[in-house]
Amino acid sequence: MRTIKLTLAYDGTAFAGWQSQAKGRTLQDTLESTLEKITGERLRVEASGRTDAGVHALGQVVSFDTESPLPADVLWRALNSTLPRDMAAVAVEDAPPGFHARRAAKSKRYRYVIRDTRQPNVFERNYTWQLPRRLDDERMAIAAQSLVGTHDFTSFETTGSPRSSSIRTVQALDIIRDPHDADRLLIEVEADGFLYNMVRSIVGTLAEVGRGVRQESWPGEVLAAISRRAAGQTAPAQGLFLLWVKYEPAAVDAPARDEARAS
Amino acid sequence: MRTIKLTLAYDGTAFAGWQSQAKGRTLQDTLESTLEKITGERLRVEASGRTDAGVHALGQVVSFDTESPLPADVLWRALNSTLPRDMAAVAVEDAPPGFHARRAAKSKRYRYVIRDTRQPNVFERNYTWQLPRRLDDERMAIAAQSLVGTHDFTSFETTGSPRSSSIRTVQALDIIRDPHDADRLLIEVEADGFLYNMVRSIVGTLAEVGRGVRQESWPGEVLAAISRRAAGQTAPAQGLFLLWVKYEPAAVDAPARDEARAS
Repeated sequence: MRTIKLTLAYDGTAFAGWQSQAKGRTLQDTLESTLEKITGERLRVEASGRTDAGVHALGQVVSFDTESPLPADVLWRALNSTLPRDMAAVAVEDAPPGFHARRAAKSKRYRYVIRDTRQPNVFERNYTWQLPRRLDDERMAIAAQSLVGTHDFTSFETTGSPRSSSIRTVQALDIIRDPHDADRLLIEVEADGFLYNMVRSIVGTLAEVGRGVRQESWPGEVLAAISRRAAGQTAPAQGLFLLWVKYEPAAVDAPARDEARAS
Repeated sequence: MRTIKLTLAYDGTAFAGWQSQAKGRTLQDTLESTLEKITGERLRVEASGRTDAGVHALGQVVSFDTESPLPADVLWRALNSTLPRDMAAVAVEDAPPGFHARRAAKSKRYRYVIRDTRQPNVFERNYTWQLPRRLDDERMAIAAQSLVGTHDFTSFETTGSPRSSSIRTVQALDIIRDPHDADRLLIEVEADGFLYNMVRSIVGTLAEVGRGVRQESWPGEVLAAISRRAAGQTAPAQGLFLLWVKYEPAAVDAPARDEARAS
């Protein structure tokens, strides 16, 4: 028995989210049925976290156990020739036995993409939140600083599964005007964990500051309120990308087996 | 009666091409029915040229006559709030009466996008031709030079409507490694006119040079053969973008009426 760490990219547009469910095309079901075709086994995969319908990933991490003897490089190629075109294997690696993509995760980074210009962009309609007027990103950057650090993020959690604690540590919250396209504003959040809809709720709140309808101090007040009703709107799913998941080196360094990654 | 010059962007993925037809969703039908909703008139639009199923546009130009008194800016807004999300108005301008987007066109530029890397990209699957190995763009650039100028391009025309002449002038054929993403190779062709599938046929031919299966001199030999069977494969539709259409200033400068354009 081996444990595999699979890094996955997907376009979430045509998926009903990560989690397996009776109706609708999900990422988990699609991946598990693809792995069954390749290995002949009914495997169960674990993601670092579930993503909602319409949310994308550049570097989702998934773990699973398999009896398959296929080298990591062959698995990588088999996945990319068998998965539907809106999913791709980025890397396949042998991990220490028992590696668990969710439980072992130390931190994650999400990117949220806003287009803030009058001109609609047909090619980015499924990958951005399109707002008709320029947001003031300098004011948003000032406001964002009050959310960095270890806090109770209850105000930025929408109804979801109950969690034992709402305290998370946000290591970075960066507001970046895309250097290659001034009409794109990137909001990146890195944390040791995320509550349900936390990034989208932070983005919706910061956007109100960027639009000028709220002061720079407001997101800090929302945080301090520890109340779900305090926050701004939840930004739509299609602007959200899971960029990467980080692990302790010891959790993922396998005893010298294969690794496959394009170039 | 006014003549309008409309600059249009579209994602061709979900369209059966430009031209109106009995079955399938076409760009022309969608635009004409949208204009009917806005103006109440059954208008007939003319594009600078038809694009095939799956081909995209950043700056397609369309002309039509209308009795509508709506200012250009209001038309622009009405179009962008009424068109489906895979079409957008980029600019609406009053043109001299009788301006015809196809007959008045002086030159056009197309871009073809190749991704030449082992790693599939889920977000670009409908917007690039994905090839698993790096192409030699320096060899392709040398080969491309033999196609620049005024030539009989019969070898690069696939079966289509018969034309009175197959002679066209290619003003530029640029091979550009995307400065922001080294896995993207852009092939841009500017000409006074294009035969059916001309860009895709040129791209397929140059790609064989880039792969190393043909010499740099081969595309020039294909051109000289004046035979449709001489060329390489026709590159797939989804990598092709119509960038812009150029007109003589006199053809488009209206006697001081409105112009609407974002920003």
